[in-house]
Amino acid sequence: MPRSFRTIGLIGKYGDPGVAGTIARLRDHLRDRHLEVLLDADTADTIPGHGIGTADRNGLGRRCDLVIVVGGDGTLLNAARTLVEHEVPLLGVNLGRLGFLVDISPPEMEERLDEILAGQYFEEERSLVHARVLRAGELIFESDALNDVVLHKWGVARMMEFDTWINGRFVHRHRSDGMIVATPTGSTAYALSSGGPLLHPSLNAIEVVPICPHTLSHRPLVVQGDSRIEITVVEGGPGEGQLTCDGQIHHRLETDDRVRIEACPHRLHLLHPCSYDYFHILRAKLHWAEQP
Amino acid sequence: MPRSFRTIGLIGKYGDPGVAGTIARLRDHLRDRHLEVLLDADTADTIPGHGIGTADRNGLGRRCDLVIVVGGDGTLLNAARTLVEHEVPLLGVNLGRLGFLVDISPPEMEERLDEILAGQYFEEERSLVHARVLRAGELIFESDALNDVVLHKWGVARMMEFDTWINGRFVHRHRSDGMIVATPTGSTAYALSSGGPLLHPSLNAIEVVPICPHTLSHRPLVVQGDSRIEITVVEGGPGEGQLTCDGQIHHRLETDDRVRIEACPHRLHLLHPCSYDYFHILRAKLHWAEQP
Amino acid sequence: MPRSFRTIGLIGKYGDPGVAGTIARLRDHLRDRHLEVLLDADTADTIPGHGIGTADRNGLGRRCDLVIVVGGDGTLLNAARTLVEHEVPLLGVNLGRLGFLVDISPPEMEERLDEILAGQYFEEERSLVHARVLRAGELIFESDALNDVVLHKWGVARMMEFDTWINGRFVHRHRSDGMIVATPTGSTAYALSSGGPLLHPSLNAIEVVPICPHTLSHRPLVVQGDSRIEITVVEGGPGEGQLTCDGQIHHRLETDDRVRIEACPHRLHLLHPCSYDYFHILRAKLHWAEQP
Amino acid sequence: MPRSFRTIGLIGKYGDPGVAGTIARLRDHLRDRHLEVLLDADTADTIPGHGIGTADRNGLGRRCDLVIVVGGDGTLLNAARTLVEHEVPLLGVNLGRLGFLVDISPPEMEERLDEILAGQYFEEERSLVHARVLRAGELIFESDALNDVVLHKWGVARMMEFDTWINGRFVHRHRSDGMIVATPTGSTAYALSSGGPLLHPSLNAIEVVPICPHTLSHRPLVVQGDSRIEITVVEGGPGEGQLTCDGQIHHRLETDDRVRIEACPHRLHLLHPCSYDYFHILRAKLHWAEQP
Repeated sequence: MPRSFRTIGLIGKYGDPGVAGTIARLRDHLRDRHLEVLLDADTADTIPGHGIGTADRNGLGRRCDLVIVVGGDGTLLNAARTLVEHEVPLLGVNLGRLGFLVDISPPEMEERLDEILAGQYFEEERSLVHARVLRAGELIFESDALNDVVLHKWGVARMMEFDTWINGRFVHRHRSDGMIVATPTGSTAYALSSGGPLLHPSLNAIEVVPICPHTLSHRPLVVQGDSRIEITVVEGGPGEGQLTCDGQIHHRLETDDRVRIEACPHRLHLLHPCSYDYFHILRAKLHWAEQP
Repeated sequence: MPRSFRTIGLIGKYGDPGVAGTIARLRDHLRDRHLEVLLDADTADTIPGHGIGTADRNGLGRRCDLVIVVGGDGTLLNAARTLVEHEVPLLGVNLGRLGFLVDISPPEMEERLDEILAGQYFEEERSLVHARVLRAGELIFESDALNDVVLHKWGVARMMEFDTWINGRFVHRHRSDGMIVATPTGSTAYALSSGGPLLHPSLNAIEVVPICPHTLSHRPLVVQGDSRIEITVVEGGPGEGQLTCDGQIHHRLETDDRVRIEACPHRLHLLHPCSYDYFHILRAKLHWAEQP
Repeated sequence: MPRSFRTIGLIGKYGDPGVAGTIARLRDHLRDRHLEVLLDADTADTIPGHGIGTADRNGLGRRCDLVIVVGGDGTLLNAARTLVEHEVPLLGVNLGRLGFLVDISPPEMEERLDEILAGQYFEEERSLVHARVLRAGELIFESDALNDVVLHKWGVARMMEFDTWINGRFVHRHRSDGMIVATPTGSTAYALSSGGPLLHPSLNAIEVVPICPHTLSHRPLVVQGDSRIEITVVEGGPGEGQLTCDGQIHHRLETDDRVRIEACPHRLHLLHPCSYDYFHILRAKLHWAEQP
Repeated sequence: MPRSFRTIGLIGKYGDPGVAGTIARLRDHLRDRHLEVLLDADTADTIPGHGIGTADRNGLGRRCDLVIVVGGDGTLLNAARTLVEHEVPLLGVNLGRLGFLVDISPPEMEERLDEILAGQYFEEERSLVHARVLRAGELIFESDALNDVVLHKWGVARMMEFDTWINGRFVHRHRSDGMIVATPTGSTAYALSSGGPLLHPSLNAIEVVPICPHTLSHRPLVVQGDSRIEITVVEGGPGEGQLTCDGQIHHRLETDDRVRIEACPHRLHLLHPCSYDYFHILRAKLHWAEQP
């Protein structure tokens, strides 16, 4: 049975007043269809005169049946992390360029939206990971990530040293610029630049990708999505490190810190038009030839 | 509940009389424990004077509770394909060098075997894939593979052209030396040399890895293990092709042939000593440092 | 001092009657400028009614001050090998798609040609390599190559084994699908698909690139252009092999064959319009972004 | 004609008192042969009681006929940069592990040294590069590098954007974690971890290697050793950057900074025992199989 949509949230690209026009079009279109519209409080600060009731992320999560994200993939990453516990479905409108996650373009926005409101959509679940940093056994930081959790050197030129365990089994001791732990969604992002494979979004898996590994036979490793991945910054390693989630959330790492990464219990519900085709997006973004 | 073992089959490396001593040791050891021993008919031809009753692969599959394979990974690949429909568990004894699949070394063979017969073992399931070649819509060839199904140029220097579909969705048109469709087991074999990632054996997945792709942004793709992968040799493509399963089974491909690859309904049951550690084998085979 | 051009040779893509129109336009344009025109004998057979005097490659090499090649990079590779000993300059007109070597497009052909005839051109030297196959110490085959000399398996699925020496020093024993020995010109061809670097055409160097190496730490190696590279097919290697020059010239290899590759004493003289920009062609062919 | 050696300098690993024993052995051995010995002033501070006359790097460079470096490759990188303008030959004694540059092991040290003092050595020249940072057209920093000059992000998670020119020709605009400009000596260091090829030390070349490039078709590029490479940090790029020479010398980069890299006019003269074999060291360090 298709979802029913009564209250629709709107989130715009952070700090970008250029979203005002698209937000206004969405507001008018949704109100014409007698739907309640709520605007993300941060976005509201950026575009005065919006004429919409506002809510913070928790409010959006509790009250909305759908949240439309206007921006790029980065905006959707942020929305996904802040709304994931509510499991409210998200829909992405890109500002200009096709994204991997925000796949509706503004010119066709109202038409696609009407189809989706009428129940004609493709709903996809995307997994997130949850990272915890343990220092001397104590939890000092935690964050979700839709794309990736990256341990990397910070402000040093030399490699770092990491020990990796999967489900309690030692994998390797490892000198490199860093380690990427990515979801299938993140497999098209930083992990791809570091030599990681593409993981189909429907695959329940996590990939562990070294960044510029010193040992040339180190390779990306793909494990089950319910694996527990633990990476420690080895004592005596030469540099300072940082943990970064989705390229947006940062925390400093010290020697002996243990980073534990597991599947997030909640999942992102991402809506697409029925014409959505993951491989079409891959071909467009990676400059692969279309079938003649 | 551990398995009970009464009849044990023995398979030696194909055409290698050097397995005779190890086979004889296994025969004597198993008979001392009052177990029935059966020898693979092909192996029997290679080592006259073995003094064991023989059976072909179907006979081994029907009558044995365990089949011990003496040789290298190649011998176990062959045994797995020919016995998989019976789902009889296999155990691998390597001749000299540690393998990914045959992980018991002859000096410790009897000791490990006693533990396994006593129920102290780690049982692992490994998936296989099944490949079908369709010519003008008709099935002209099929085979299982434990490692990989490879479509590759044959006797030509130039690249071939392939179209790939996953579950009926077009993925890409592709010029390369070939395409590897590999199981997690095969991810440490040819696919690794071609830039594919390591897939943990417990992951239900298949990887599709291009060989020397002309388009530099083509990347290995990992999909769910129950996906249907179809690859066609494009009409007008420049070369002749061949299909190869596990590097052991070959069939010529012509333009417009469609190769359909899906999970095999049966799985390999591979027994290991309790000390088995997948990552230890990875470290040993890929020259990764052990933890100091 | 710019070259003087009196007799101009024309070579068309092998076996392609579609070159007739472009050849006719070149013929008329050159005769209008009172230049003598000679047509490659093979091309002449393909386009009856051409109305031009013909010559074989040696004749073209001896009599022409310039040879214009109409086709793709493959046509120019062939022309370069067959004409290199005469060191007659070549100019490439592409049929439809920009090539790395044939960089004048038909619509602008006459205009560019007039500039070049008037001495406004960029002349570039490209090195070739010369390969010799020695069997039991005797020379059984030799060929030049502008792009690359490739030793590769032929009609087998398994890897081959090679020993490589540089200037008499042993480099490595090596299991792989093959070995590519490429010039800077060939560094944008097959070597690139196999992970080799781009070598600037002005660099006096040769690259040795393994194809799908079994040992994951094997890497492309770049050596001086005057190095002597020797590769032997190791006795007991599992497969049959083939030597291929520029993807066009083939010779079967047997166990213990020694392939010796050195710089060709002659060089290709390639003319370009003054606007020629190697990096522009790289960007266009490899889908790199232009500077905004 | 072999060099004559009268005054020998000694440099130990920076800040490591563990070099004292090896330095003392060298001192005694050289004095037994009536040679004058000079100790690097920094090393002298680290190992009190050394009983040797000291000199700073300029003093060593002016007065010595040979400088022996005791430590790892990092110690030799430092010595090479600080002594290169004097072109005094260097000899490397490794502390424990074979290095690419320090290839004499302590147990055989005296024997090898006697051979070298007697004129039995292999002398090799290695090129260095010189990097200049220009801000608003003004030189604000410069340094030599024996391995590599690296432009990289510093304390940010996001990619940087670079424009690259070779000899004044625009190459590409480029988003990545950084750019490595490496000598043949540096081709076995960081550049190798980032996918760069091995460059033979005798090749007069420089390689430009992107670190985790966003555009998947970006590839390492090898150019002539006398090329002028210029890389600018693009205005509006998202992050802060740093320049690092040999992993040892650092300077912060700002948007619009231009880094100009050219061959250093001086070269390193590196002495080896006659048994020196570059490919042997490659095989040992990269875990390639020796010839059986």
